[in-house]
Amino acid sequence: VYAERMRRVAASAIMELIKTTAGGSYISFASGLPDPSLFPSEALRECADAVLSSASAPALQYGPAEGYPPLREAVAALLSRRGLETNADQVLITSGSQQALDLAGRALLDPNDGVAIESPSYLAALQIFDSLQARYHAVEVDGEGPLPTHLTVALSHRPKLLYLLPNFQNPTGTTMSLGRRQAAAEQAASAGVAVLEDDAYHDLRYDGEPLAPVAALAENPWAIYTGTFSKTIAPGVRVGYLRADRRLIERLAHLKQITDLQAGSLAQRIVFEYLTRGHLEPGIERFREVYRRRRDLMLGALQEHLRGAATWTRPAGGMFIWVTLPAEDAERVLEGAMRRGVLFVPGSTFHVDRTGGRGRNTLRLNFVSPTEDQIQQGIPLLAEAIRETQG
Amino acid sequence: VYAERMRRVAASAIMELIKTTAGGSYISFASGLPDPSLFPSEALRECADAVLSSASAPALQYGPAEGYPPLREAVAALLSRRGLETNADQVLITSGSQQALDLAGRALLDPNDGVAIESPSYLAALQIFDSLQARYHAVEVDGEGPLPTHLTVALSHRPKLLYLLPNFQNPTGTTMSLGRRQAAAEQAASAGVAVLEDDAYHDLRYDGEPLAPVAALAENPWAIYTGTFSKTIAPGVRVGYLRADRRLIERLAHLKQITDLQAGSLAQRIVFEYLTRGHLEPGIERFREVYRRRRDLMLGALQEHLRGAATWTRPAGGMFIWVTLPAEDAERVLEGAMRRGVLFVPGSTFHVDRTGGRGRNTLRLNFVSPTEDQIQQGIPLLAEAIRETQG
Repeated sequence: VYAERMRRVAASAIMELIKTTAGGSYISFASGLPDPSLFPSEALRECADAVLSSASAPALQYGPAEGYPPLREAVAALLSRRGLETNADQVLITSGSQQALDLAGRALLDPNDGVAIESPSYLAALQIFDSLQARYHAVEVDGEGPLPTHLTVALSHRPKLLYLLPNFQNPTGTTMSLGRRQAAAEQAASAGVAVLEDDAYHDLRYDGEPLAPVAALAENPWAIYTGTFSKTIAPGVRVGYLRADRRLIERLAHLKQITDLQAGSLAQRIVFEYLTRGHLEPGIERFREVYRRRRDLMLGALQEHLRGAATWTRPAGGMFIWVTLPAEDAERVLEGAMRRGVLFVPGSTFHVDRTGGRGRNTLRLNFVSPTEDQIQQGIPLLAEAIRETQG
Repeated sequence: VYAERMRRVAASAIMELIKTTAGGSYISFASGLPDPSLFPSEALRECADAVLSSASAPALQYGPAEGYPPLREAVAALLSRRGLETNADQVLITSGSQQALDLAGRALLDPNDGVAIESPSYLAALQIFDSLQARYHAVEVDGEGPLPTHLTVALSHRPKLLYLLPNFQNPTGTTMSLGRRQAAAEQAASAGVAVLEDDAYHDLRYDGEPLAPVAALAENPWAIYTGTFSKTIAPGVRVGYLRADRRLIERLAHLKQITDLQAGSLAQRIVFEYLTRGHLEPGIERFREVYRRRRDLMLGALQEHLRGAATWTRPAGGMFIWVTLPAEDAERVLEGAMRRGVLFVPGSTFHVDRTGGRGRNTLRLNFVSPTEDQIQQGIPLLAEAIRETQG
């Protein structure tokens, strides 16, 4: 009875892990959640209050599928400041960046269409492409992002879409170098391949200067750039955005209208009020400070307890550290870690072929959800579990 | 470059009408919007304030794809009171009922799958089924809903889905009789056809007692029932729901997670707070009183100004009156009405074959958006435009 697309729609390994461990008291490096203690509740309460006190009717009424016009303007200004010149009519407001990715995929992908994608990559994007019955052209990554030779091969298959996470990639934490961004942008444009650039973590940068978005580095009418306020304000408001060519936005807005009419008017106006009051930058700074300290603490703890037993990435931002073990025993390490009350996500789940055995020697650690105490307690326990498997 | 599904994704005639007339000052019977002056702004402001004041972190964090558990409970209780016994695990919270319909369609429909559907029917549902490349089995309607003989023929084609709007159908305002509900429920169940029952207008009943939902009238593991708080609280919060068998909910939740992760945590908790404080029933009563008066006023004005020149439905609830003209000149009437500053939607746009010429003698009038003054001014002008085409 189910549609064909449902064959490849299922709960993720992460969701399953979260469900099975919901009762217990674990130190979790598994989730992808921001730290809720940093959410700007009081500022949002004031914004909600203001939105619902004055001229509240439009905030509660239906609105345009493209989004609340002043918020589209504000997002355009924000992206222009990132070096990606954007007009308001190039912005679609979405229900989080997950929806931005889903809409882009649905607009472009027929069953069996090719998607060039880093492997490992963002699990929920893989789930979207799975549900669209895509074929994958996997691109291996190193510390600078997708390997140019692999990317060239992947693009030579003429995929419909190249999916990239240039900043602090989930799951590896890797940032794509400027040279590779430039090359990828140019190659995709000249091959006529759409680029779907997922920049959800853009503002969570702890070191160095921001690099130009891929979308800014070549003329490509099919360049799609997505972002969100989930990491810089709070996920519970569900406000993200998609930036693309004006004509593409128009088509995507039709699809958005069919999907859920529009992002919530109330949520959009609360976010707009938050931006207007100047809360965004100070709020981002708070996230950055706390997350930077946790990253440094986790890197230090890994250095202290795992030196010689594993290697790991040193992300310049984002939420994740990627650990590589000498042997393919991440699943066994997870068992040992769970016995010690520690959770993480084994890396194989982020690969294009989730059951194919790639990445079995890797683990993803979230360093922003746990407290400093939990990091200091949890990493030694994880290290014990790793050393145990190594005999 | 676009996916095949995009061929049948476009702006609706209604959206186009709204866009082209956005600058002018029209009396509009065209839209499908509730009256924003009735939105419970102050109650919602208090609810938002409460949600964001105490224990606000979970209201701003990610939550389960299925929805906020207490809200699922509350919706289950609400549906049980409607005579549709429901457990919380049979409820999926969605971003409005539009998304509920879209998720149901995506879960069940492959390209060229059949959909049995009233013609005319809800335009945005037609757009969903179009985007899923469905084939239609149109079912004619009369004053009691879908004609049994037509329904039997449609079901004999073994469609995947039967889409029904039993209460105050958009666009005709018709309520399906209990006998026809019973027969449709039984026939669909025995044919193994999924029923997608759209009950968005349930609480906007102005006369008589509620009838049992189709989903309550036969055992059908593929009975899907959708509803929303858009008409009873406000559309801008974007909170709707879908009720189905527990196993189906589980699959739909996976699809929901891929689509946009979850309905907004903040919006869900504001709605839950609103329900908990007992605002829903008094709020519905306010909508009912005002809308009932407007319906009566419009029916009276039609009687006064259009007697003999047209016929129309007398809806027991909802938002729309359906006018039938003796000749196929609704488009010409629209031109004349627009010259007089009045808008409505010609009926052909609600038919399965939107350009096939069916319904060219019909118009849909929204009686809840215009004020009483606008109804009293607008209907005579509309009558003039109609009589003008009749020479």
